[in-house]
Amino acid sequence: MTVSEYIACYLNSQGVNDVFGIPGGVILDLMYAFDAHNDIDIHLCYHEQCAGFAACGYAQMKDTVGVAYATKGPGFTNLITAIADAYYDSIPVVFITAHTAKSLPERCRVVTDQDMDTCGMVRNITKYAKRVDYLEEIPMVLKYACEMAREGRKGPVFLDFASNLLKQEIRLDMPSDKFHGMHNVYSYVNMLCSSLREAKRPVVLIGDGINQTFLQSYFCSFSQAARIPVISSRYSHNIEQNSDMYYGYVGSHGIRYANFILSKADVIVSLGNRLNFPSSSESYGKIAKNATFICFDVDGGELYKHPYMNAGYKIDLRDFLPALSDNPYYCGNHDEWKATCDTIRRELWDTDVNDVVLAIGSILQNMDGVYTIVSDVGNNEFWVSRACVYSKNTNRVLYSKSFGALGNAIGKAIGAYYATHSPVVVFVGDQGFQMNIQELQYIAQHNLPITIVLLNNHSSGMIKDREKAAGYSYSLHTTQDSGYGVPDFSQIAKAYGIEYHSYKSNMRLNKYPHPQLIEANIPDSVELTPSLPRGRDCQDMEPRIDNTLYNRLNSL
Amino acid sequence: MTVSEYIACYLNSQGVNDVFGIPGGVILDLMYAFDAHNDIDIHLCYHEQCAGFAACGYAQMKDTVGVAYATKGPGFTNLITAIADAYYDSIPVVFITAHTAKSLPERCRVVTDQDMDTCGMVRNITKYAKRVDYLEEIPMVLKYACEMAREGRKGPVFLDFASNLLKQEIRLDMPSDKFHGMHNVYSYVNMLCSSLREAKRPVVLIGDGINQTFLQSYFCSFSQAARIPVISSRYSHNIEQNSDMYYGYVGSHGIRYANFILSKADVIVSLGNRLNFPSSSESYGKIAKNATFICFDVDGGELYKHPYMNAGYKIDLRDFLPALSDNPYYCGNHDEWKATCDTIRRELWDTDVNDVVLAIGSILQNMDGVYTIVSDVGNNEFWVSRACVYSKNTNRVLYSKSFGALGNAIGKAIGAYYATHSPVVVFVGDQGFQMNIQELQYIAQHNLPITIVLLNNHSSGMIKDREKAAGYSYSLHTTQDSGYGVPDFSQIAKAYGIEYHSYKSNMRLNKYPHPQLIEANIPDSVELTPSLPRGRDCQDMEPRIDNTLYNRLNSL
Repeated sequence: MTVSEYIACYLNSQGVNDVFGIPGGVILDLMYAFDAHNDIDIHLCYHEQCAGFAACGYAQMKDTVGVAYATKGPGFTNLITAIADAYYDSIPVVFITAHTAKSLPERCRVVTDQDMDTCGMVRNITKYAKRVDYLEEIPMVLKYACEMAREGRKGPVFLDFASNLLKQEIRLDMPSDKFHGMHNVYSYVNMLCSSLREAKRPVVLIGDGINQTFLQSYFCSFSQAARIPVISSRYSHNIEQNSDMYYGYVGSHGIRYANFILSKADVIVSLGNRLNFPSSSESYGKIAKNATFICFDVDGGELYKHPYMNAGYKIDLRDFLPALSDNPYYCGNHDEWKATCDTIRRELWDTDVNDVVLAIGSILQNMDGVYTIVSDVGNNEFWVSRACVYSKNTNRVLYSKSFGALGNAIGKAIGAYYATHSPVVVFVGDQGFQMNIQELQYIAQHNLPITIVLLNNHSSGMIKDREKAAGYSYSLHTTQDSGYGVPDFSQIAKAYGIEYHSYKSNMRLNKYPHPQLIEANIPDSVELTPSLPRGRDCQDMEPRIDNTLYNRLNSL
Repeated sequence: MTVSEYIACYLNSQGVNDVFGIPGGVILDLMYAFDAHNDIDIHLCYHEQCAGFAACGYAQMKDTVGVAYATKGPGFTNLITAIADAYYDSIPVVFITAHTAKSLPERCRVVTDQDMDTCGMVRNITKYAKRVDYLEEIPMVLKYACEMAREGRKGPVFLDFASNLLKQEIRLDMPSDKFHGMHNVYSYVNMLCSSLREAKRPVVLIGDGINQTFLQSYFCSFSQAARIPVISSRYSHNIEQNSDMYYGYVGSHGIRYANFILSKADVIVSLGNRLNFPSSSESYGKIAKNATFICFDVDGGELYKHPYMNAGYKIDLRDFLPALSDNPYYCGNHDEWKATCDTIRRELWDTDVNDVVLAIGSILQNMDGVYTIVSDVGNNEFWVSRACVYSKNTNRVLYSKSFGALGNAIGKAIGAYYATHSPVVVFVGDQGFQMNIQELQYIAQHNLPITIVLLNNHSSGMIKDREKAAGYSYSLHTTQDSGYGVPDFSQIAKAYGIEYHSYKSNMRLNKYPHPQLIEANIPDSVELTPSLPRGRDCQDMEPRIDNTLYNRLNSL
């Protein structure tokens, strides 16, 4: 078998059935081998950035690695934004390219066109980056790369093969998979439960790390048995949506009642949440400092981030969650605390729900069947999150979290479709949509069941808000009268042969076997609320609620 | 004055009147300062990749640095393809971003969202990459960056400012510009001319390095006085187009008569040409080895590339060309050799001119006035080059040369427009056009006089040829029946509000004040010819010419 066939077989043995990229001379052999493999489909995107995002979306929705390939030079550099996104958001993707130069340029800027020190460029945004120049190393490198991508805190790996290797014969056995043993995690489970038992007002703060295990149901069993209020990051609102124990997501644009409840907690147990607030934050640092603050994370580095953490445990949730669910130690009776939480949630349930949130909620409620939601970056993602909680939507939403890559959603949606073969709904703003609009060609050509809900406010809403907050009296490149513009999206849809609808209230989106673009025009005056001004108590968000209510809830 | 105002003033003092980017929180202050500056216009693109390419095109057409800015994280990573393009093609661009994290992540993957080791990522594709964290260093860093970008072999520099510095007050004088003195170059001129004098069949081989000096006319004066046959790289066919001394461009897809003439040369003097062929090339290495081979290059590293170079001189053509032109030493009488060259050119003048080349030539001939041509990547660029020489078009063409970044042309055209305020004509294939199609919004919104000639062969022609050459019996993602597709471009034009025309023979393109898209449908059977199979003599290209003619020309 050739090296290319070997790579295809090995990746397939890891669960990969779909790969994404654009052809180029140096990777032709690999592409043809992917194509020849019975259980692998190859997908052509129209910008390598989208191929990378598609691989991300695929890996996020399927418990395997994603795979994206590109030719050398610009093919490779076009992948970099997606590589960084995968790194920041802990997505296991194998990025593959190939080179022809025997060595890197030393004295000379360009030795062979398009060849470059690829690994040097992505070393800091990958878990493993390897230039592969020898036949013998391929089996171990490939195995190591796939393991690295998925083990512990997941993330991208990068392999740059010597192009001439790809057609050579290789006669080695497949290396065996690493054994993922169950470590002795029960002592940790016991410790966690005893902390909760001793608490008066405990909360469990969950994060997207739980989604990344594909073992969400184990956590749900635990939370039902333990009866401890659960709050989440904005990226994990799906997990506990069906549970009466769920009290929303926290954050500076979080749900107000979640922030209220967090502010009252005396024990905070964090699971798979990387606690993305500055240690110096007066809003969140204070809470973490005053409460007993216990963290479980697969990345030991995260445990050093906050000086006032009371205990931090480096643990893989893939081992931990089954143990937590299997052995529900008694976690104490917290009925009174739960009643307080219920009151706060009830009183603030409708707060900050604007027309856009209602419209998104209505779209979500009018969908039937299994689907994936992908959200782009900008104010639109906050509205989507709020709507998901308000409409109690349990579907997972893919976001670009820490890296915030504007324009990632279309690519991720393509990957998510192949991971699930279920319909996908994308919420995207008008600026992010333009950024990778070329990929409509892919969606149309393959007739994918992807519904794109374009939240068009004819502006760059989030940056416009930043301009205002920074004290500038006029907008710059963020509104239609300051240099920003949008094309006629209905005509764009027509050009790509995609069904177009203007959003109407109570539209039903069930049974959408074809691509469609739904454009919702949003006045650019709709702002992102609520928000937390720097230094304020986290429950004291803008716009402020009625003072009497605020004081009453605060004193509960 | 604030740091942002200082940066704006300094860049303007260097000749910058236009900057390109997309807003983001960390660079708002800089953007507003650019905007407030009377002599700077800021331009919003729809993908940072295009902002980067626009800055490249600007710098290529105007003797100053280009400037592109982006927000941190994905804004920065979206620039990288353009940064690499600028590095490989020696384009002086100042790329600017900003950061908020005080230090880089060490123990932890993500400390502050979107912050990353930017400089580490682009160190190998920039002449200078600097994280700027201190107020005091700004004047020197900025001055050094601009000088580095333009001095010697040009190239990109990268500055990553601490965002909070951008609004601080700075009270330093502008540093003075570096004095570019005239070195003692006359001895080199003398040496060059005596080499030519001693030769029987000398050629001067020019490259795009001469375009980069903006002193092309000095070279033309020299070549007219010296009467030495001039051949060029494919990227510098514009320089000598008006001269009877010009004999086309060489290369494996070069003009056949140029390759013929090169094969006969006994002295080759290379000026600003980086001699991009492998030392081991049997086609070109042999010629260089047998002839006396003398090279002048601004990058000393290039002079070490070919072992059989007889002499290499590190020299800045900006100093050398005026001296060469001012003091035309006698270069010998080569009338007989010129007559031989004339014969070869005359006999092969029409060879390899296919219908596409004729169509492009007709478009070029039917344009009036000053304009810039930008070519994208792929087979289309070779047709454009051939057509330029065949139609004796003297306009400069911007290419993505060594980096070959598919999709760069639209962005570069935008930059070239602002550099020249003259109409721009873009030739682009259907795959490259899709890659950054979002930027039609920019062109339409600002009503730029950019004509896009879309050479639509409904395929990825160059890779399709590679597939065939590699021995694959079917296409993969390169043709319409193998996964590649195109939208309805007339509808796309309509969506963006851009005038659309189907190409018709003898179309006149003069006076085109508005954006327009001209789509030329090309049968996907049109292949790229001629080409030079590996190992063949460089004049013995495919498809082969009549054997009698070949032998006669060979024996001249």
